[in-house]
Amino acid sequence: MNPYIEQLDGLDRRLSAIGFCESLVFWDAATLAPKNSVKNRGLALEEMAELYYTIFITDETKELLTNLERTKDSLPELTRVKYQFFKEMFEQIACIPVNEYAAFSNLKTQSSAAWEEAKKTKDFSIFEPFLQQVIDFQRKYIRYRNLGGHPYNTLLQDYERGLTVEVADTFFEQLKEVIVPLLKRISEKNMTIPSPFTDVKFDIEGQKAFSDKILDKMNFNKDSGIIAESVHPFTLNLNRDDVRITTAYQEDYALSSIYSTIHECGHGLYEQNIGEELGFSKIATGTTMGIHESQSRIYENNIGRSEAFWNSYYHLLKEQFPEQLKETNALDCFRASNDVKASLIRTEADELTYSLHIMIRYELEKAIFEGALEAKDLPAAWDAKYEEYLGLSPADDSEGILQDVHWSEGLFGYFPSYALGSAYACQFEAAMNREFGFYEAVAADNLGRINEWLKENIHRYGSTKTPAEIIEGATGESFNPSYFTDYLVNKYSKLYALT
Amino acid sequence: MNPYIEQLDGLDRRLSAIGFCESLVFWDAATLAPKNSVKNRGLALEEMAELYYTIFITDETKELLTNLERTKDSLPELTRVKYQFFKEMFEQIACIPVNEYAAFSNLKTQSSAAWEEAKKTKDFSIFEPFLQQVIDFQRKYIRYRNLGGHPYNTLLQDYERGLTVEVADTFFEQLKEVIVPLLKRISEKNMTIPSPFTDVKFDIEGQKAFSDKILDKMNFNKDSGIIAESVHPFTLNLNRDDVRITTAYQEDYALSSIYSTIHECGHGLYEQNIGEELGFSKIATGTTMGIHESQSRIYENNIGRSEAFWNSYYHLLKEQFPEQLKETNALDCFRASNDVKASLIRTEADELTYSLHIMIRYELEKAIFEGALEAKDLPAAWDAKYEEYLGLSPADDSEGILQDVHWSEGLFGYFPSYALGSAYACQFEAAMNREFGFYEAVAADNLGRINEWLKENIHRYGSTKTPAEIIEGATGESFNPSYFTDYLVNKYSKLYALT
Repeated sequence: MNPYIEQLDGLDRRLSAIGFCESLVFWDAATLAPKNSVKNRGLALEEMAELYYTIFITDETKELLTNLERTKDSLPELTRVKYQFFKEMFEQIACIPVNEYAAFSNLKTQSSAAWEEAKKTKDFSIFEPFLQQVIDFQRKYIRYRNLGGHPYNTLLQDYERGLTVEVADTFFEQLKEVIVPLLKRISEKNMTIPSPFTDVKFDIEGQKAFSDKILDKMNFNKDSGIIAESVHPFTLNLNRDDVRITTAYQEDYALSSIYSTIHECGHGLYEQNIGEELGFSKIATGTTMGIHESQSRIYENNIGRSEAFWNSYYHLLKEQFPEQLKETNALDCFRASNDVKASLIRTEADELTYSLHIMIRYELEKAIFEGALEAKDLPAAWDAKYEEYLGLSPADDSEGILQDVHWSEGLFGYFPSYALGSAYACQFEAAMNREFGFYEAVAADNLGRINEWLKENIHRYGSTKTPAEIIEGATGESFNPSYFTDYLVNKYSKLYALT
Repeated sequence: MNPYIEQLDGLDRRLSAIGFCESLVFWDAATLAPKNSVKNRGLALEEMAELYYTIFITDETKELLTNLERTKDSLPELTRVKYQFFKEMFEQIACIPVNEYAAFSNLKTQSSAAWEEAKKTKDFSIFEPFLQQVIDFQRKYIRYRNLGGHPYNTLLQDYERGLTVEVADTFFEQLKEVIVPLLKRISEKNMTIPSPFTDVKFDIEGQKAFSDKILDKMNFNKDSGIIAESVHPFTLNLNRDDVRITTAYQEDYALSSIYSTIHECGHGLYEQNIGEELGFSKIATGTTMGIHESQSRIYENNIGRSEAFWNSYYHLLKEQFPEQLKETNALDCFRASNDVKASLIRTEADELTYSLHIMIRYELEKAIFEGALEAKDLPAAWDAKYEEYLGLSPADDSEGILQDVHWSEGLFGYFPSYALGSAYACQFEAAMNREFGFYEAVAADNLGRINEWLKENIHRYGSTKTPAEIIEGATGESFNPSYFTDYLVNKYSKLYALT
């Protein structure tokens, strides 16, 4: 046997163990850790980052990669893929000096805490200096990486392999051409959609019980995962046998927790269905954020906001809330969950305007890395974009620039994957529809059929395929955003009786 | 400046970061992680243990320790103490081959899971093979350490620096001479103590609210700590700014959660009061398990089971449970929390018989490491000891040998520290009483006075002093178990009107 295989697996196991610990620290910080824990957590994470770096970025690893390249043709398929994955990871990290790499880890811890405080007190000035430092680090990283092309490309492709400003510009342009006039026509209709979810309280215990039932319907394996609460819902993948999702309950807005649970469960299913043969490994996780978001959004939107979904599962909600829902029905819930309204908060946006929220962030990020915006300029730039795209102005920064956690954690380049995910999801839906009735499965309370298809065509591969390979393999064609725009036009034309 | 100081601090920081992660993984496993998470957690912890070892046990560290020894006289006090601490840690670990050290970490993970399953299903055979492997490892460790003397000494001193079989034998002999006849006299009295806590349900929410109030009274800093639930209450010290305690609520036995909370909070206060000047360091934690238990037990027993305590805080419990407590008073609670009864479960035992439970475990462990007992012999040996000391036989192994988590985690040599802790606590109480009225402070709702004394004389030092130094410094004399036996005789003579 090729000795480099074992060496690569050993390195993988060690880096995966450090990653496991770092992820758990992150989970704990978001769900449980006390206020004063920030400082020492920052120190611990800085040490762990340095450890990760010094174990990975060595002459020994460089030699290993050279040897794997040399013997590539004789490697088993899985090792060849893993080698490619590690080579990319090595290049991403090795260009950064170790002290800067470790210091950035600590900076993110402090910056997240500052963001949380700033958001709570609606005071951007608390966050601004940290945000500027995070931006400065990203700019330096782009220079270190030295890939050429648009500077923002470097960040984009860390979240979506193959994505460039050129591709994203075209994609968003195509969306804009459909969404903006569609939104205009809907607004002109001036319809009021009555909602069973406003002006009535849904107690938290009942919402929890409903979440629990929906997780079962979605085939979330509770022996290999848990659900908890956090201010901002997220999914944490320790490994296929330990997947954590969170949701956030609001008494006066039950729809929010329902869709958070479904969305995060979509991410969770992806991770739980990763092929066992990939082992305890860096490649045993979703391949990119775009593909990951396609899995959360196909459940949240294509399934969860469909009429078939409400016809199938309305009775579960009614069991839990007979009083609150006594005057309504499944159709009301379906319509309420698709009420189109320009709004300020991305995570509460309807499916149609959602992509506009993403475009705003995309354009701001692009401008930052073109050097046109600094941290101090961002609140005004944010507000101007919201005025332009949605005709709204935030009353304060907590419903403006401070609403999202991403930038505080250095996640620049991440946002576009949400919109890409929606588009991939529609292409996957269409592919399933060619094999079986997608909405018939939902209507028949058979989400397992959909889960099986996703597992077979997407989930099980983990990171062994690129997004392009996944899409090609699952749908037989390359990425085509028209599935998404067609879906939006069809759905909203019916809902709003547009002719 | 001596360059070795910085080198030692760097090593300390890195090992502390790994320890931080390992502790958090342990916390998560005990409070939250899903069932199937065991296998990969084991892999991750094995890697982390190997990492810890390979970072610590190197020629570089050996050279550093030699250099520190050589320049010892010119070192600042804190570094000198830290050097001594690291030298001992190095010797404890360096004698074990790295692969065995790492494999033991994984074994503990699997063994804890097997123990949990065995306890739940009351089936010792599930746990037996793991227990034997854990014992085998400990025996090998004793040979590797090669300290001479009684083999069990090696384990004892890992939990209580300076403790030997000879010292422990004398200590337990002295306890036995007092406790056994005292228990006999109490039993002969045949008194029935009515309890406000039996045959009545105390809802969990109310118990939580009371726990919360008691934590405030005890000055637990909730910005630097949290309380959660776990099957077996424990305290986890990440660092002084992040201390986690757990408790376990039972509707039909509220006293259990009350004393678990108080006990764990005692541990928690020790950790929260560690001197800030010790930094993010391996020495910034309680010095030994014996001293740690003295802090939990002085709160649980000396304070929590005193008449003064119930006089001060009964009203808080009554506020929470007016219905349940309408026919009772503080005195009833005081008496009920000191009801002496031979029983099978250590953690539910009264203060008097508690030490007998410890002696049983001490004697079994001693026999194991003398080579007289193997895992398969332990259930019968356990039952025989309970018959001998307490006149009781467990109905099954879950209330017998499977009741405690310790052995599954390799914690052999740990149990004696509980009894030592009780004895130290009484000596500390006596020292405080020479400076101010200990029970007067409790009666005056001024636990802060006691917390201050403990902080000043014990907590702040972390691991910079040995137990002997702590006791000498705090009380002006060396360890004297008579304070404990006198305390027991006084307390129970009054309670049971013995003449």
